[in-house]
Amino acid sequence: LDYQHVQVPFEITLWIMLASLAKIGFHLYNKLPSVVPESCLLIFVGLIMGGIIYGLNDKSPPVMDSDIFFLYLLPPIVLDAGYFMPSRPFFENIGTILLYAVVGTIWNVFGIGFSLYGICQVKAFRLQDVSLLHNLLFGSLIAAVDPVAVLAVFEEIHVNEKLHILVFGESLLNDAVTVVLYKLFRSFCEMPAIKSVDVFAGVGKFFVVGLGGVLVGLTFGMTAAFTTRFTKDIRVIEPLFVFLYSYLSYLTAEMFHLSGIMAIVACAMGMKRYVEANISLKSHTTVKYFMKMWSSVSETLIFIFLGVSTIGENHEWNWPYICFTLIFCLIWRALGVLVLTFFVNRFHVNTITSKDQFIIAYGGLRGAICFSLVFLLPDFHRKKLFIAATTVVILFTVFVQGMTIRPLVDLLAVKRKRESAPTVGEQIHIRFLDHLLAGIEDISGHWGQYYWKDKLEYFNSKYLQKILLREYDQPKSSIVLLYEKLERKHAIELAEAGQLGHTPSHPSLLNNDRTVITDKKLEDTLNLDVLENIQEILARNLYRIRRTGPAYNRHTLPGETEPMGRAKEILILRHKGL
Amino acid sequence: LDYQHVQVPFEITLWIMLASLAKIGFHLYNKLPSVVPESCLLIFVGLIMGGIIYGLNDKSPPVMDSDIFFLYLLPPIVLDAGYFMPSRPFFENIGTILLYAVVGTIWNVFGIGFSLYGICQVKAFRLQDVSLLHNLLFGSLIAAVDPVAVLAVFEEIHVNEKLHILVFGESLLNDAVTVVLYKLFRSFCEMPAIKSVDVFAGVGKFFVVGLGGVLVGLTFGMTAAFTTRFTKDIRVIEPLFVFLYSYLSYLTAEMFHLSGIMAIVACAMGMKRYVEANISLKSHTTVKYFMKMWSSVSETLIFIFLGVSTIGENHEWNWPYICFTLIFCLIWRALGVLVLTFFVNRFHVNTITSKDQFIIAYGGLRGAICFSLVFLLPDFHRKKLFIAATTVVILFTVFVQGMTIRPLVDLLAVKRKRESAPTVGEQIHIRFLDHLLAGIEDISGHWGQYYWKDKLEYFNSKYLQKILLREYDQPKSSIVLLYEKLERKHAIELAEAGQLGHTPSHPSLLNNDRTVITDKKLEDTLNLDVLENIQEILARNLYRIRRTGPAYNRHTLPGETEPMGRAKEILILRHKGL
Repeated sequence: LDYQHVQVPFEITLWIMLASLAKIGFHLYNKLPSVVPESCLLIFVGLIMGGIIYGLNDKSPPVMDSDIFFLYLLPPIVLDAGYFMPSRPFFENIGTILLYAVVGTIWNVFGIGFSLYGICQVKAFRLQDVSLLHNLLFGSLIAAVDPVAVLAVFEEIHVNEKLHILVFGESLLNDAVTVVLYKLFRSFCEMPAIKSVDVFAGVGKFFVVGLGGVLVGLTFGMTAAFTTRFTKDIRVIEPLFVFLYSYLSYLTAEMFHLSGIMAIVACAMGMKRYVEANISLKSHTTVKYFMKMWSSVSETLIFIFLGVSTIGENHEWNWPYICFTLIFCLIWRALGVLVLTFFVNRFHVNTITSKDQFIIAYGGLRGAICFSLVFLLPDFHRKKLFIAATTVVILFTVFVQGMTIRPLVDLLAVKRKRESAPTVGEQIHIRFLDHLLAGIEDISGHWGQYYWKDKLEYFNSKYLQKILLREYDQPKSSIVLLYEKLERKHAIELAEAGQLGHTPSHPSLLNNDRTVITDKKLEDTLNLDVLENIQEILARNLYRIRRTGPAYNRHTLPGETEPMGRAKEILILRHKGL
Repeated sequence: LDYQHVQVPFEITLWIMLASLAKIGFHLYNKLPSVVPESCLLIFVGLIMGGIIYGLNDKSPPVMDSDIFFLYLLPPIVLDAGYFMPSRPFFENIGTILLYAVVGTIWNVFGIGFSLYGICQVKAFRLQDVSLLHNLLFGSLIAAVDPVAVLAVFEEIHVNEKLHILVFGESLLNDAVTVVLYKLFRSFCEMPAIKSVDVFAGVGKFFVVGLGGVLVGLTFGMTAAFTTRFTKDIRVIEPLFVFLYSYLSYLTAEMFHLSGIMAIVACAMGMKRYVEANISLKSHTTVKYFMKMWSSVSETLIFIFLGVSTIGENHEWNWPYICFTLIFCLIWRALGVLVLTFFVNRFHVNTITSKDQFIIAYGGLRGAICFSLVFLLPDFHRKKLFIAATTVVILFTVFVQGMTIRPLVDLLAVKRKRESAPTVGEQIHIRFLDHLLAGIEDISGHWGQYYWKDKLEYFNSKYLQKILLREYDQPKSSIVLLYEKLERKHAIELAEAGQLGHTPSHPSLLNNDRTVITDKKLEDTLNLDVLENIQEILARNLYRIRRTGPAYNRHTLPGETEPMGRAKEILILRHKGL
């Protein structure tokens, strides 16, 4: 027996296996996951595992290594989150999200830090040795909402898209603020004296860290898109580039002390559109599937490790400090959301309701990022107290808030996510309205969201697509891609039901010169390709609707409509489309 | 800048990126890969990289770590090889393969070892200090044909299936022999005296190592299949189990000093059938794609590292020893193939031609396994000579033999692989003949291949499928799966060509009691499910053939055949099938 030799890969594989089996186990009993979120169950498994290890070895089980967390477990989750980010609601609400992420996080950090310092002044609690700086440092790590925890809970409760993107976007974008404040306070702790110039440098640093991360991410994303232009002959390694470039962007950003999370999100969002157009359908399935799989495993491991690491002798218990931390976390977040939303609602037509505000405040879960940051603190005599307080806050938010948020959403009747995807017709109207609004903004001289979106789209089709796409001759709009996807799915369903039969195959036989009335002005605003695509879709889609629900006609029997006449029409329309 | 922090993942990612980009680079210029095998190009890139590192640092570049090779780079390639192993030709030729792998390898080891010892006795060569045991040890590592090198070259030259499986199967199955002999001679080198009991123990060990590996692999494979029974609700982690269990089987086998390669091949071949039936279509695509991708990257890295490791000061040059090693490798392999094939041909109707024999002997490429084994040798004063000789043999076989084998195959007009997959009709006949032959063997009391295959199939459908498959009610034979796959592909093609039209949708409208004449005896031999499936396929397939090539009829115009009458027929046939 030579265990030493294979120990590292063997143990890693076993941990992943345990995590996956635990996941299967929960789903075997159907009722459990609908009541308790998976994250709670996984932490629970981790607690049991930790208890067993503690009982057997009589020493604390190994703590989740912060390096392993930040270098190996976090990136897959953030990559998945960024890649599948619904970009439309994200950019529509980017202002609000940034406000919550930047101002809200700073508000929470200072709020929690200063009020905890106030608590420390009470002599009865015996906490006078915790300085203001240490309290602020602690505030900076406990204030940030955790994307992993938020994702795990919000994916199960299906609130409406806007609410989801507000909470989730905030949890992703607050990384830059957290990184800067955490590092700032940590370096202040080690400095003998703090000058005001250091404070200003800190403010400047925030922009460098955030925007730098985005820049690094976009650079790698564009390179990835460019690389996939040349993979036509070796389809098999296409998925690899998506993962390699995203990971490199994360590591590069971390190397320069920029925000790795912002980098990987920017990289994923930037490359998605071009990569999807370049790579083959199977490669794309692999990318999507593997990303989901990887992030799911990472998440599982994080929650299990979180449970395991909780057990042990790392904690110093101080009732007042821990209780007040919890209370201040809740109060300051609620206040922050209320105040910020008040300003947001003054400038928007589509306001955030008070129910939504409650869910945003209540959904501010803390998770593994806080936990890793608190272990990364330099050693000082109250570190164990901070660890205990962090653990309590995480467990409280994940267990109590995570488990009650679903009933609360039901109780408050918060607007849910619509069940079905938008129809092709709706998508066309959305796109049309975008063009219209861009035009209106252009005429009125107001440089709003739509104006910039239009400019970006123009830049994209004029320059980026030519460089990054392999087959630029046939640029496909997202609607056409969606349509193709639906058509393909429909075909597979038909094939599986064994109903694939005789199909019309000679569209060239019937030539007809019927003209389609097109609005000349519309044609000028929309670019020609989009117009063509829309025509094609309408032609096919109208036919489909008519076919699936034929009008009642007392001269024909049901199921005996005239296929020839209709086929003729379709062929004419299709011919027009080509 | 904090490079230390991210160094390990950053450098690994960069190496993989380099390997992938090199692959893309080769394929950009189309002519190159058709002349020079990719493996040669990659070694060449490695040599250049090594030269650059050597030139810049003025010290030997890092050598490929044997642990990294055996624990991380080799398993993906072997898993891929085992999972996509064409099981029919493999089991049809298992006897010949085992003969080549076991007897052939032993023949080569002792042949090369003893003749090199003879060379060492020539005083002029100044090699008297190399003992017989060291020569045999060297023989044991240099004799084994390398699966990675064989795969890389043979996948490009497309020889016929039997020839391919003979060379490739040998390279996989000789692992057990190599492991045993290598470890045996290594322990003999360190022993003061060798007793005859040790030699007998060595012979016994071979069976333990080989069969033990297979047993470990099958156990994990069955567990994997059983696990995928329960993944219906969490499709996203299904692919993970295929990888986790295979890797665990490899690590477990290595831990107990069994043959890891045999274990992972057995695991992959054992689980494939059941896992494919249990997991979703998308999971399956992901598994296949990711396996190919991973093995492709591993292979690329191995060849690049092989090139890098060649550069440096690890070599001791001794012309006679190195030249004679190369010559003996070639001669003993050729002799071995000739002698063994002579015996094989005496017992088989379907003989191995002399052209095939030449390609088998010539295709005995050495690769990274020899290279890693020679670095794993205990330190002794002639180790550098062995390293040099191994490097020369590998480079010679990969470059000279690898590059000339394609022209030679063309020149000798070796039978190529058939281009198209067997038709459904052929597959039905093959299956039918299997049943027939099993019956004949049963009656004549001859326990041949078909008898055992039939028994295994019976055991499979009686016990294994019930335990391992999720939906046992609808066991699908491989033909039905193939048919479904073809149908789905056809549907996608139609959808992509935009020809998916009106399909008949009311099979229940037309009931007809036409009877199908079935041979009662045939029904007894075939099991009922298979018969039903075959009927269904015939029904659909006959229709398809008739549809695609309608008979000429002077009363109808082309493209104007009677769809209604035919549709009626199809519906009747389909109704029968259901």
